[in-house]
Amino acid sequence: MTDVNALINANEAFYVAFVTGNAGLMEKLWSAQADITCIHPGWPPLDGCDDVMESWRCILSAESPLTGISSARAYFYGNIGYVICQEHLERGILIATNIFSLEGECWKLVHHQAGISPSDPMLHTNEGPQTLQ
Amino acid sequence: MTDVNALINANEAFYVAFVTGNAGLMEKLWSAQADITCIHPGWPPLDGCDDVMESWRCILSAESPLTGISSARAYFYGNIGYVICQEHLERGILIATNIFSLEGECWKLVHHQAGISPSDPMLHTNEGPQTLQ
Repeated sequence: MTDVNALINANEAFYVAFVTGNAGLMEKLWSAQADITCIHPGWPPLDGCDDVMESWRCILSAESPLTGISSARAYFYGNIGYVICQEHLERGILIATNIFSLEGECWKLVHHQAGISPSDPMLHTNEGPQTLQ
Repeated sequence: MTDVNALINANEAFYVAFVTGNAGLMEKLWSAQADITCIHPGWPPLDGCDDVMESWRCILSAESPLTGISSARAYFYGNIGYVICQEHLERGILIATNIFSLEGECWKLVHHQAGISPSDPMLHTNEGPQTLQ
């Protein structure tokens, strides 16, 4: 598997956990070694495993607003990589930055930020969301 | 200078360029080697020096909406670091993720994402914005 595929797959696994409401999988995908951080849209920044995982347990306990992702693109800096992608929700599109750290052979999430995307659909690619389940 | 100070200073220089509308300084602060990316709030993601710098020339040609930043916090992964901070605008607060790459002795921006912050001021720290000019 190429580095690009491995990082894109790690990013996809994150959204599979999100869309399926799988809190156990979500926790495994984040780094247990790093000082992880997370910025959900409209939330204050969260810092540390306890606060980040509590936020995900809260979010994943409700029906997922996420329907899919698209336009995932990976960027590498040695053992650090990040992915930019569009998150498709029932009521709009967000853009996310997901930073990963390579731990052993696994890319682990260390940071996530999602924010509101332009409302003009012409600004987006024509690529539809990929199936995550 | 410690790594933390150097990274926080690089982040502050980015906002000095922003608040003073200094497009020349802004361009120097971004990596000329990496495939840089940028997500302005409400914009589609931008990829590559040409598009990112054109966006900044456009933004910096108008009066800056930025009045200061606060709560900057740095995270390190070897030669990659990122800073999370609040951007204070005249009409609200944004939260930003700024990723830097250490090139020689300089931390250079490779990615910026800013998004809307919670409207509830109690969710923020009581720290006021620092002076940037």
